[in-house]
This record gives sequence, structure tokens and C-alpha cells, in this order.
Amino acid sequence: MFSSAQISLYPMTGDFVGVIMSALRALDPYRDRLRIETDDISTLLVGPPEVLFPAMRDLYAVAAKTGAHCVLSAVIWRGCPSEPDDEICASPQLGGPRAPLDQRKEEALEAVAKAPAPGTPAAAQFSLYVMDTGNHTDEIYGCIDFLKRSGVFDRSKNFCTRLGGNSGAVFALHALACLF
Amino acid sequence: MFSSAQISLYPMTGDFVGVIMSALRALDPYRDRLRIETDDISTLLVGPPEVLFPAMRDLYAVAAKTGAHCVLSAVIWRGCPSEPDDEICASPQLGGPRAPLDQRKEEALEAVAKAPAPGTPAAAQFSLYVMDTGNHTDEIYGCIDFLKRSGVFDRSKNFCTRLGGNSGAVFALHALACLF
Repeated sequence: MFSSAQISLYPMTGDFVGVIMSALRALDPYRDRLRIETDDISTLLVGPPEVLFPAMRDLYAVAAKTGAHCVLSAVIWRGCPSEPDDEICASPQLGGPRAPLDQRKEEALEAVAKAPAPGTPAAAQFSLYVMDTGNHTDEIYGCIDFLKRSGVFDRSKNFCTRLGGNSGAVFALHALACLF
Repeated sequence: MFSSAQISLYPMTGDFVGVIMSALRALDPYRDRLRIETDDISTLLVGPPEVLFPAMRDLYAVAAKTGAHCVLSAVIWRGCPSEPDDEICASPQLGGPRAPLDQRKEEALEAVAKAPAPGTPAAAQFSLYVMDTGNHTDEIYGCIDFLKRSGVFDRSKNFCTRLGGNSGAVFALHALACLF
């Protein structure tokens, strides 16, 4: 399954270049399992979800530890009609056909309850865009229901769900929600 | 037609709160024509596209003029299945049924050629997500073709098109591309 992210890190400090460059080094342990391409706007990550999300979490954690106010902006894709399925994306955990929505929701709730949550406090906004299905609203409302029951739900906003809590839990939740 | 945006401004300076608060004052001339709600993560704008995009442009311009390196992140929606059509969104310019894709593309190219382009240099990444249609890839590729012929095309990236040029032209282009 092709999965991928375009991510940008925004440290609110005059030394933003230094913070970004040092945070990018947090991706080094993942470079054999992810395709990584950085330019002056964003970094592309291509690889299986169980590697992609820990890589993003570690990059954010290194930047946040500097004490600068930091935002990580990420657009995460599951599949892409114009991209071949990259060999690096093969996932033993996440192959095969998708289960029914209710089953995915219960499995995601069980997984998030078990997720370790080291990290600093973080706030996030999450939106799911579902294309190429006849039931995109069912999928979106199913995901919103999962977020509300996840333990890090803050409140509903227009076009997104606001999450808040420990950054480890917030990243674990994003990983699960993106697999919906 | 309901149109709306969730926007966040990220000034890369220790005085990010001061830059954001002064930039938000650039929205004051639009407050009678837009519904505006700000919290500590983002600002919601609801209103017709011909007001929404100039408001975003002015907010960005005020922030950029401080000299701080600034990013404006925006998710812009056309329509929303869960929202009533807000009276404030009524657009005399943009009501009625949508024209065929090729006609919209040509009209957008004519409009972007006439758009005034005052402003500072800016780089941007643009993605279009089309839900609830049987031809979402046709719409996306039609929009990418428009961006390539627009005069501010930089290059194609995974999942987005990179634009570069005068910030006035980049905002005008976003307005047109979001209407696809």
C-alpha cells in the first residue's frame, strides 16, 4: 500500500533554519526504510505507515525540545492513483482488503488504548478527506466518532477535529485515524 | 454557495504572537462580509470567495511586511455536506450551476492573465481534493493543467503543485484554482 506524507516544520524563532536542520537529523535512523526528499518548502516521506508516523513524531519531538514554539503541518496520503505502489511501502501489518468500518473503528480504539504516550503536551487539528468512494461521509463520520472516543478529543471545529493531550498519544491517534 | 477556510499564520520569529495579532487586524475591513472565528490554532473565515481570498492575501501581506519569514497555511472548502448554506456566502459572481471543465479552465486562464499582481515574492504548494463526484481525477488533472499554464507554475511535486512568483498572482491563482 502506497503511503506518503508531505510535511513542513514551522519553528517560531529567528533560528528557524537551525531548528529545522537539526530536527531533520531525527529522520536519519529511518532513511533505509523511507524515501525522503527535502526542499525549502516541505519534506516528502514515502514508506509504510508503521515507519512514517514514528519518523514524524521523532522529528517533531527534537524540534519541540529546543523550547521554540513549533508547528508540524502534514498532509498524509493512503494510496495515490497516479503513483505506482512503491516497494518500500510493503507493510506486513497493514496489507490485505479493508475490514468493515465498525470493525476498523473498534480495532483502532483498542490500539489507541494500548499506545505508549511519552512526550510533551500538544494540540492538533485533524481532517480526513475521502475520495473515490460512494460513501465518503460514512467514512468521515466514522473517523470523527473514533476521534471523539479516543481520549485526546478536544472539540469539533468547522472542517476539522481539534485534539489535545500528550504528543505521543496525539501522533498515535493520527496514525490510526489516517488508516481509516 | 458555502465557502470557507481554516487558516493559520506561522511567523518564524520569537515575536510570533505580536506578528499574528497585528496581521489579524488586516481582517477588520472584511468583518461585515465574513464570519470570522479565531482561536489559538487557526482562524475560520466563512463568506463568498471574492471576499475570502483578498482577506487572506491582506493578512499575509501585513505579516510578510514585518520582514519575518512567514507561512500561511490554509484549507479552503467549497461547499460542505454538514453545513447549511450560510447567507453571508451568497455570491452574485459565482452562483448557478458549474460549467463544463474545459470552459472553467479557459475562463480561469483569462482571469488570471488579467489579475493585478502587487506584492512580494512568494512560494506556495497547492493541492485539490475532490470528493463526492464520479470524476475526481478528471477534475484534479484539469486543475493541474490550469496551474501549469498559469504563469506562476514552478514544478510538480508528489501530491501537490509548487507555485512561485509575485504573492498577488499566487493568491489570485489560488482563488481561481479553488473554484475548479
